[in-house]
Amino acid sequence: MTREIVIHDPTLRDGHHAVRHRLGADQLRRYAQACDRAGVPVVEVGHGNGLGASSLQVGRAALTDEAMLSTVREALSHSRMGVFMLPGWGTTADLRRAIELGADVVRIGTHCTEVTLAERHLGYLRETDAEAHGVLLMSHMAAPQQLADQCALLVDYGAQAVGILDSAGHFLPPDVTERIGAIVAAVEVPVIFHGHNNLGMAVANSLAAAQAGAGIIDGCARGFGAGAGNTQLEVLVPVLERMGFATGIDLYGLLDAADIAEQTLMPAPPITNSLSIVSGLAGVFSGFKNPVLDLAGRAGVDPRDVFFELGRRQAIAGQEDLIVDVVAELLARGEVPA
Amino acid sequence: MTREIVIHDPTLRDGHHAVRHRLGADQLRRYAQACDRAGVPVVEVGHGNGLGASSLQVGRAALTDEAMLSTVREALSHSRMGVFMLPGWGTTADLRRAIELGADVVRIGTHCTEVTLAERHLGYLRETDAEAHGVLLMSHMAAPQQLADQCALLVDYGAQAVGILDSAGHFLPPDVTERIGAIVAAVEVPVIFHGHNNLGMAVANSLAAAQAGAGIIDGCARGFGAGAGNTQLEVLVPVLERMGFATGIDLYGLLDAADIAEQTLMPAPPITNSLSIVSGLAGVFSGFKNPVLDLAGRAGVDPRDVFFELGRRQAIAGQEDLIVDVVAELLARGEVPA
Repeated sequence: MTREIVIHDPTLRDGHHAVRHRLGADQLRRYAQACDRAGVPVVEVGHGNGLGASSLQVGRAALTDEAMLSTVREALSHSRMGVFMLPGWGTTADLRRAIELGADVVRIGTHCTEVTLAERHLGYLRETDAEAHGVLLMSHMAAPQQLADQCALLVDYGAQAVGILDSAGHFLPPDVTERIGAIVAAVEVPVIFHGHNNLGMAVANSLAAAQAGAGIIDGCARGFGAGAGNTQLEVLVPVLERMGFATGIDLYGLLDAADIAEQTLMPAPPITNSLSIVSGLAGVFSGFKNPVLDLAGRAGVDPRDVFFELGRRQAIAGQEDLIVDVVAELLARGEVPA
Repeated sequence: MTREIVIHDPTLRDGHHAVRHRLGADQLRRYAQACDRAGVPVVEVGHGNGLGASSLQVGRAALTDEAMLSTVREALSHSRMGVFMLPGWGTTADLRRAIELGADVVRIGTHCTEVTLAERHLGYLRETDAEAHGVLLMSHMAAPQQLADQCALLVDYGAQAVGILDSAGHFLPPDVTERIGAIVAAVEVPVIFHGHNNLGMAVANSLAAAQAGAGIIDGCARGFGAGAGNTQLEVLVPVLERMGFATGIDLYGLLDAADIAEQTLMPAPPITNSLSIVSGLAGVFSGFKNPVLDLAGRAGVDPRDVFFELGRRQAIAGQEDLIVDVVAELLARGEVPA
């Protein structure tokens, strides 16, 4: 029996992290058109941090949300358009505007234990025709049952699909099997998995997710995304097909889209380097990379030690002040590289 | 119970394919010294096609075999030195000279159904102190039991470790589990697995191999190798450790070695591009890439169709004339891209 997997492509949103949110209209249009030709079901677009996030703090996008959505909407005939929002950055007004501009699929993301932040937004989406997704970031920081309980709450709030992001690229396949399995057992809606490649496992983890019952899986052209990148979409799709899943996507069209992405969107495809391995092993938010390198460098402390210590302390986004504390303590302990 | 995995690092041999065999003595020395500091058990060196292969046909190396082996031998205090040989390119005289120059581990490779070609060389190695390995290339082209039978023959000839290379990067984890399991059941010596990353599965496949009982696993710094590259060593090691295997390698030392490799050995780390995905899916020897692109391009045929047809015909290295036939037939059938 062939089971269908719905592919969700956030290349034009998550990939934005790799180019400081500077994609222009021609770039968005060409890639979106290629996805449309290939039959990619959902093309997600926006600032890397989602609707409303363009700012000095996380980087100003080249285009407004309105310009990005209008451009991609015009480029799509068959594929649906997706958007992403983190409550705090985006508001219900941003959601309303995105839907007016033609967003078909709207994802609300929260830290893996904070879904109550999404209640109001999912409540609003109930009143619209958009398909509402609820996703949990940094999902390695919660136990499988806790994730399942949070996903069940998201469904109560109105989410029509729920799931997890491996934001730190920390999972190995058995971790994914256990977590997706717990969520599938807890909800009646499709379950989402979104991987990162810090440990070279994004495709294998996504396959494990499909085998554990996930119905929606994310992938980006050439893995386009911050650091070690996301699950490489044009690898994921034929691997899923070979393992007996159906995606409905045309392989050559998808390879063409990936070639266009490599040629027009990115300076170079993402690779897994030493620091992305360390952050994946430590389970630390990849956005900590620059401040860690800066502070550790100035203090003469090994940034790898800082990453592992931040991991032990379960640091999450927003706790950048912890980096200062950790560097100071490592200096005091004399843990300085030879 | 922690089981030990012996890591075998062919960065300075397989990586040579990515730089037309042009690594110089300083490059070999710096990387070998870094491996030695990290505690990598075996550092393999040589022309990409092994001892005796430097030639106009497959590319002339920057250094002679003697110069490469002497340089690496001097750089190693703890790690053992490995060499690779394909009968036909190399001879028993090459093996003798390599052992005189300090090769500790000698691998003889043959096509997966042609181990009789290795009998004489493994017989010679029995008379030496070198550790003799027998490995099967293009191992997706034979059934698990056939591979196990071939490996048993290699042991009869004198191999002290035997195993398989996923030369085309075609395997998914269940394929590896089945094949390594069959070989482990058939022989009493350590079993070897060597992956390629065409389908983004090299690390996951290597983990599957370890879990199926493999005792020796290959990896290259940043995956340095032809096309989509090999298993990324500095990812593989911490992933194995996290899954309960012991490698004895120092993580920071290994990450340092990988950084040195990225900075000094390669123009850029390998990535998985569209053509490497197609060749992996088709199960075709990656060395066919340039002639396929050339002949398909001149005829106006889609090179992806050529790869898939070569895969259906089970083309193997040396059958480059098949490419001409396939291109002509696709032209005749009118299978030309729009």
